[in-house]
Amino acid sequence: MIHIRVPATSANMGPGFDSIGVALQLYNHLWVEEIPEGVEIEIRKEQPIAIPTDESNLIYQTMRKLYDAKGLKMPGVRLIQSDDIPMVRGLGSSAACIVGGLMAANELAGRPCTKEELAEMAAQMEGHPDNSNPAFFGSMVVGALGEKNMKHVRLELPDDLFFAIMVPDFPVSTERSRSVLPKDYSRSDVVFNVSRAALLVASLMTGKFENLEMAMEDKIHQPYRKELIPHMEDIFAKAKESGATACYLSGAGSTLMAMVTKDKAETFRNQMSAYFAALPNNWQLTLLKPDLEGAVVVTESQEEVE
Amino acid sequence: MIHIRVPATSANMGPGFDSIGVALQLYNHLWVEEIPEGVEIEIRKEQPIAIPTDESNLIYQTMRKLYDAKGLKMPGVRLIQSDDIPMVRGLGSSAACIVGGLMAANELAGRPCTKEELAEMAAQMEGHPDNSNPAFFGSMVVGALGEKNMKHVRLELPDDLFFAIMVPDFPVSTERSRSVLPKDYSRSDVVFNVSRAALLVASLMTGKFENLEMAMEDKIHQPYRKELIPHMEDIFAKAKESGATACYLSGAGSTLMAMVTKDKAETFRNQMSAYFAALPNNWQLTLLKPDLEGAVVVTESQEEVE
Repeated sequence: MIHIRVPATSANMGPGFDSIGVALQLYNHLWVEEIPEGVEIEIRKEQPIAIPTDESNLIYQTMRKLYDAKGLKMPGVRLIQSDDIPMVRGLGSSAACIVGGLMAANELAGRPCTKEELAEMAAQMEGHPDNSNPAFFGSMVVGALGEKNMKHVRLELPDDLFFAIMVPDFPVSTERSRSVLPKDYSRSDVVFNVSRAALLVASLMTGKFENLEMAMEDKIHQPYRKELIPHMEDIFAKAKESGATACYLSGAGSTLMAMVTKDKAETFRNQMSAYFAALPNNWQLTLLKPDLEGAVVVTESQEEVE
Repeated sequence: MIHIRVPATSANMGPGFDSIGVALQLYNHLWVEEIPEGVEIEIRKEQPIAIPTDESNLIYQTMRKLYDAKGLKMPGVRLIQSDDIPMVRGLGSSAACIVGGLMAANELAGRPCTKEELAEMAAQMEGHPDNSNPAFFGSMVVGALGEKNMKHVRLELPDDLFFAIMVPDFPVSTERSRSVLPKDYSRSDVVFNVSRAALLVASLMTGKFENLEMAMEDKIHQPYRKELIPHMEDIFAKAKESGATACYLSGAGSTLMAMVTKDKAETFRNQMSAYFAALPNNWQLTLLKPDLEGAVVVTESQEEVE
């Protein structure tokens, strides 16, 4: 079977709403093969939310979109899905299904598309490229979406940077999370985010971490979404006090993210674990490294190692 | 006398409204010295708009602000001003006076401030840092302004890039130019500029010029200001057809800017000169290199060379 591995992604990085995201070393796996007809789907890992095993399955639907786009006949498909990315937590689990589905269909169909073309399709399907781009290319990716095209730049990240995901026991649906946002923004709020998004990219690319506290500020979504995430501001304050370089709401939530350099990781982990132990919502803290590869077709020899 | 040289600057680069600017090899010069009392101001070059030679002179007023901020007594001052940056054309002539005034006062007062502190003061005076930052530091500078602080990153520019200033015979006042802007922007317009500002910085820093056409798009000010600049869209179209990598309205106008790589400079100059010859408004085309030094105190030995 063809084995695809897709990383978790954290979008809406700081001021980079719908624009900037990062891939993390936490993965969904899927295996596909052609069968004579129909669809057979096996879910290897239980999720709190039931994953469809019929044609409404997101990976299957995405595969079909690629076949349709290329004018090819969709074959029968057997699909195994094994997901470690938690669902509805702002860690790109839907994007991982879309990216995985496109990669899988492209492999099965004999690679009619380049990775660039697949990334373009995924961004258009999602309506924003900040999950799908890092899921495809790894590391941190800046992307802009036009009506008919998508441009992106993959940035190198310093190798001593951890992304600490702080995941609560409640989901926040993207619909709910989008519904609390205003329709319009003042010019000063626009300038606030534009200037910080530019500063964020420039500061990360030149290693100016001292700018990140300001460069990660946001007025597009986080001020409106804090009501959806109990203790969000307290957790951010505690995380900074415990050594985090910067904090933000990952995607549409509910995961909170702290960027932590290696030298502060141990202290951060200890202090935040103690802090979360006294909070409701069973917050789970995990320090992840960025994924640098993006989605890959896992070869047989790699598979044996795993 | 103390001799200060300050470069012209082009702000509002593409999507980077109030955020991203570049310094250009076109300069204002000023000389200052202490005198027993009062103020003597000499204007060396005639300008279409009269420059005050009393205490309302912008350079003099800015010098006083630095003395006041540091709790120092303002001495009598003799000031000579020689300006090559055209006024009210969106090339940072006001910012050059503010930056020059701060530099001059800082020299006269025995350097109580670092250049960083001066840049912070200038940004707060202007309300945006995208002229004053490149005027201080040279090259292209990304900056964000907080209530009490300013952070910036100076970017290296590829050395084969020209900035073609296209200056018409009419000014556009900043007040008029700000008055045509909307108060509010839709979320999709916000995302449009945020994503492109991030893409612009990332693309310039990685040499991905092929992204610039998209990365320089803007929905904050240029769509509203085109009515103030006759032929703006036609000129941009012609400039791209003549080899420009990207075009934008410089500052609040009236200067239009085209970014042109060295290999296309000659063709660009020839085609655009012919095009402007047939247009009203006496458009003047000059290809400038970016200034990489920013504002400097010119030493006596440098002065002799000039």
